[in-house]
Amino acid sequence: MGKKTDAYDAELEQLQLAVVKTQAWTIEHGLRVVIVLEGRDTAGKDGAIKRLTEYMSPRQTRVVALPKPSDRETSQWYFQRYVPHLPAAGETVIFNRSWYNRAGVEPVMGYCTPEQYAQFLTDAPRFERMLTDDGIILIKLWLDISRKEQAKRLKERRVDPLKRFKLSSLDAEAEARFDAYSDARDRMLDETDRAFAPWTIIATDDKKTARLNLIRHILKVLDHCGEEIAAPDPDIVLDSDKAKGRLAR
Amino acid sequence: MGKKTDAYDAELEQLQLAVVKTQAWTIEHGLRVVIVLEGRDTAGKDGAIKRLTEYMSPRQTRVVALPKPSDRETSQWYFQRYVPHLPAAGETVIFNRSWYNRAGVEPVMGYCTPEQYAQFLTDAPRFERMLTDDGIILIKLWLDISRKEQAKRLKERRVDPLKRFKLSSLDAEAEARFDAYSDARDRMLDETDRAFAPWTIIATDDKKTARLNLIRHILKVLDHCGEEIAAPDPDIVLDSDKAKGRLAR
Amino acid sequence: MGKKTDAYDAELEQLQLAVVKTQAWTIEHGLRVVIVLEGRDTAGKDGAIKRLTEYMSPRQTRVVALPKPSDRETSQWYFQRYVPHLPAAGETVIFNRSWYNRAGVEPVMGYCTPEQYAQFLTDAPRFERMLTDDGIILIKLWLDISRKEQAKRLKERRVDPLKRFKLSSLDAEAEARFDAYSDARDRMLDETDRAFAPWTIIATDDKKTARLNLIRHILKVLDHCGEEIAAPDPDIVLDSDKAKGRLAR
Amino acid sequence: MGKKTDAYDAELEQLQLAVVKTQAWTIEHGLRVVIVLEGRDTAGKDGAIKRLTEYMSPRQTRVVALPKPSDRETSQWYFQRYVPHLPAAGETVIFNRSWYNRAGVEPVMGYCTPEQYAQFLTDAPRFERMLTDDGIILIKLWLDISRKEQAKRLKERRVDPLKRFKLSSLDAEAEARFDAYSDARDRMLDETDRAFAPWTIIATDDKKTARLNLIRHILKVLDHCGEEIAAPDPDIVLDSDKAKGRLAR
Repeated sequence: MGKKTDAYDAELEQLQLAVVKTQAWTIEHGLRVVIVLEGRDTAGKDGAIKRLTEYMSPRQTRVVALPKPSDRETSQWYFQRYVPHLPAAGETVIFNRSWYNRAGVEPVMGYCTPEQYAQFLTDAPRFERMLTDDGIILIKLWLDISRKEQAKRLKERRVDPLKRFKLSSLDAEAEARFDAYSDARDRMLDETDRAFAPWTIIATDDKKTARLNLIRHILKVLDHCGEEIAAPDPDIVLDSDKAKGRLAR
Repeated sequence: MGKKTDAYDAELEQLQLAVVKTQAWTIEHGLRVVIVLEGRDTAGKDGAIKRLTEYMSPRQTRVVALPKPSDRETSQWYFQRYVPHLPAAGETVIFNRSWYNRAGVEPVMGYCTPEQYAQFLTDAPRFERMLTDDGIILIKLWLDISRKEQAKRLKERRVDPLKRFKLSSLDAEAEARFDAYSDARDRMLDETDRAFAPWTIIATDDKKTARLNLIRHILKVLDHCGEEIAAPDPDIVLDSDKAKGRLAR
Repeated sequence: MGKKTDAYDAELEQLQLAVVKTQAWTIEHGLRVVIVLEGRDTAGKDGAIKRLTEYMSPRQTRVVALPKPSDRETSQWYFQRYVPHLPAAGETVIFNRSWYNRAGVEPVMGYCTPEQYAQFLTDAPRFERMLTDDGIILIKLWLDISRKEQAKRLKERRVDPLKRFKLSSLDAEAEARFDAYSDARDRMLDETDRAFAPWTIIATDDKKTARLNLIRHILKVLDHCGEEIAAPDPDIVLDSDKAKGRLAR
Repeated sequence: MGKKTDAYDAELEQLQLAVVKTQAWTIEHGLRVVIVLEGRDTAGKDGAIKRLTEYMSPRQTRVVALPKPSDRETSQWYFQRYVPHLPAAGETVIFNRSWYNRAGVEPVMGYCTPEQYAQFLTDAPRFERMLTDDGIILIKLWLDISRKEQAKRLKERRVDPLKRFKLSSLDAEAEARFDAYSDARDRMLDETDRAFAPWTIIATDDKKTARLNLIRHILKVLDHCGEEIAAPDPDIVLDSDKAKGRLAR
């Protein structure tokens, strides 16, 4: 275990260094990057973001995790509360859950109407098309965790007092509605995976491997690490088409 | 003159009363209304807005006249700075100039590239389609003023010390580039007049008549004044198709 | 009547012109002006602001009329929701009701505790002292209306359909608690009238005269109209000390 | 080293657990906490915040590190840009550098006038008095690093490519003007250490020990960890008076 941890630490540090170099380049060229991170509860979004951003520039990096919408926001245009967080020149914005709430937790839990759900699946590609036409680099990641691993992590979370603020009233639903979440994920991938805004799937049952591959994938998309970086493992990072039949259910 | 003024005042007051009733209804039903007011300098946007909003609910009505974008805003998604102003349930938002700057002053004055201009003409209908699909009522008005009347009003403005803060360094350009502005207007109407977001033209050389007709048109679209209101004069308020050949140049 | 109206219109226009010149000067010198307008319901705050600001620079003038605080705001530092509206260089901000809610409607209606009320009366001068030490020009105006005139205006408001959005559930209380409001006003004047942030009282039973005098007073404080302007009428505009015994009750 | 690290990790985790329990209590009771973290470059502010907040509730915790003020902000009331970040009920806000910029980097680097500096030293206690009178719990911490340790850390920073975004053009000045920064610190402590808003000094040459003691101190002030927690080491955490003669210079 010790050895494996050491190798992971070394590899992670090498990748973080490449992230720093790449971000220096995106800042210099005024590029705008949006990273959308989606996945079931416990899929490892927070942990991946922590490693990804550890050495990034605080001034040019924002992690956006919006709270539940207010009553006023609920009555506004659905995308309205996300838009103010989009990046200016040189900025990288990471959405820890995003507008895709309306293709996941909202329809599964009944927080939106079927009409709103259908409308969202029509609107998301339109919205993203405008952003990418405007030159924003959009990276959409689905962190895929198996039913068994999720059950294990939820159990750990319940008994770990340090994770008190990670607990949510929805945790039990994550397990009880695992299949409904799988169906929602499939429909989301079917309808919103487009050439200009593709989904990439990252198998995340092994946390550390997932984190390394997630960073490798982002570096590959941005394509400017200026170093020899191992390509993401094609068994762990898949495009949406190849992922069919291999996603957790 | 006195008599005409009295008749105008009486008619205006009747229409303002209908506006109050209609807004009470839009508030009660949680409707969201966006009114986009465009037109050359001196076309009468400020004056029309003043009469329209005089008795409207201050809490549910917003007039949005954005200043020049900051450097940071200039580097963001073009629509980003407009989106936070879109209405919540029950609200009416009036844009005194709007995103259509990029189909008017910006291309005419060279403040955007031809590519940005073309992209905007593609994006505006996409953007508006998402808003109207979301249930927002969108009313787009072009106030059309003739070359002669504009010249007269600009001249008055220059000598009236009360209008000091209305003067702009662009006033001279409004006249010098009258034809370029006409061309931009025609292209805007050609490319962004859609069934879900039509343009309505209001001839505005006669200010008072224009104001009455503008309010009548808005009432007609919202269709709930609950009173006998004269229809807008079809020689003054035209849809985009019928306006062809009759627009100022 | 007609004649009187004509004289008022002429005088008002002359004063508005002086306001325009004075604001051009405050903008040029980067001065910051805060005008606090307080007074009972129907005292004429909206109408006075409308005339004062009619020709002011839209970009450098803001009228701030905050809605009821949200639950979140209620739990914050009392002044927190007012601070973001304070002026930058060259700006004039007019508060249509202000932090002094906590010395008027809140204690009278029981919306704050006696401790919060007492704390506010201690804090308001501290807060204003910091603003004026910072160079902000602070003008605090109390529009004083008599019981009889208020009753008359409230009655008119109830029957005028154009004033539908002016009606408030608190209107009845304004009359029923007239004495409590008088007491609150007196205590406010006693405890928050300071050399660095004095209160000026404007008798407002005659609306038009009140408006003219209010503008004259502001011009006198800013002292740069660059013209012969009649001084405010000392029977209508009084400093807090002289007003004692003459305030409405 | 390994052993020491293990002991540190265990102790840190115990303290973080106490932080979680204490925050659950501050949330439940709607308390508002402001932690001001000041200190020279490399004194360890970022690292301490990272450990302090690691398991805190993301929704009720904010770390505020404001960028350089914009031109507009520079012309506003000095405290204006800090006020919107103050906590609502249940929230903990950590200022990573704060309004005390005007008692440190600004006078040392000549970014403010001597008059502004003097005014700030008068205003800071007034401002903080209003906050604490309002019930906000204010904890002000000065992280004190020696000249020698700072030199060592700045040197490391310059050669570590992972710390690229930590480098600042002011780093060289931090060393060159070490004495001026010491004088500014002394004056700040003299004039702004008040009973209602005391300064606590934390010796920070040993990073890990400093972090543990910083958390212990915060827990002691909040006084609700519900566990046996060792008191902060009185040689490392000092009140402002006792610190005299022991501060780095």
